[in-house]
Amino acid sequence: MEFFEVIEKRYSHKEKFLPDEVPMADLDKIAKAGLAAPTGNNTQCVKLIILNGREEVQPLCDVVPTDGMLSAPAAIALLTDSTGHRPPYNFEVEDYAAAAAQMLLAATALGYSSVWLDSPYFDEKNQKAALAVLNAPDKYLLRVVLPIGRPEGEGSRREKLPFDERVSYCKMK
Amino acid sequence: MEFFEVIEKRYSHKEKFLPDEVPMADLDKIAKAGLAAPTGNNTQCVKLIILNGREEVQPLCDVVPTDGMLSAPAAIALLTDSTGHRPPYNFEVEDYAAAAAQMLLAATALGYSSVWLDSPYFDEKNQKAALAVLNAPDKYLLRVVLPIGRPEGEGSRREKLPFDERVSYCKMK
Repeated sequence: MEFFEVIEKRYSHKEKFLPDEVPMADLDKIAKAGLAAPTGNNTQCVKLIILNGREEVQPLCDVVPTDGMLSAPAAIALLTDSTGHRPPYNFEVEDYAAAAAQMLLAATALGYSSVWLDSPYFDEKNQKAALAVLNAPDKYLLRVVLPIGRPEGEGSRREKLPFDERVSYCKMK
Repeated sequence: MEFFEVIEKRYSHKEKFLPDEVPMADLDKIAKAGLAAPTGNNTQCVKLIILNGREEVQPLCDVVPTDGMLSAPAAIALLTDSTGHRPPYNFEVEDYAAAAAQMLLAATALGYSSVWLDSPYFDEKNQKAALAVLNAPDKYLLRVVLPIGRPEGEGSRREKLPFDERVSYCKMK
């Protein structure tokens, strides 16, 4: 798909997914797009766990059962490794956000919908349970989960502010 | 350009740019791609300032004169508004990172190179001077500057870890 068409088509899918299976090659392609994102000081602190099929999605869904996770035929979890940064900078948040943005676009380019699911995992209990399900050691933080699949119907979109309210030329107006 | 071609082509251009002018329509298109990025709770806290031509880039270049800023025929500054978030969440970093990632891809799709320039503005003196140059009130933080232009020669790329070291299936290996 043409790049700017992907940009326009991407939206946050908060509704259900169809049960259609997602080929592993597509999930790998989405993961690869995420890992190609810029990373501060080239630390590449983002790790991905691909969950393909309900059997693999369900344990994480049991931790946080959103509409998306309850129906998604696949999901990708993004974690960051909090070790290995070069002081004084830690670009974990920038890194996973850039990777997540690129993965959401990649999913869109392949005809899937997805959504950036993060705040439920800010809760300490959920975070701990999710890391256990994913077999991830303590040095990792689960940052985002992207449920992935064909959408059941057209998802809703939230209104965006007008371009002119967010863009200035030369100096802030 | 096809989406996955853009993903592969994007790199962090740390060298000089050619002096070729960048049409304003292209800068608007890059800005629009940034504003289309996901934003936590739809707060849309990212503001952009487009600097087109050396006369507009130079004052910001005087604050932090990197190779890129010294030669770039255009640049886009990304700022976040620290007010207006809904407690307990503040997604400023996630928001600007997602917007920056989409803008770097958009620049690539249009044949330009760019780079995510942030750490020089972490310095308080530089931050204050840059905000003054951009006429931005205190409630804003300058997060990233993206110098934009045609690259002078092929830029260097840093090595990426192998896919298998960063991706697991079902559980973290």
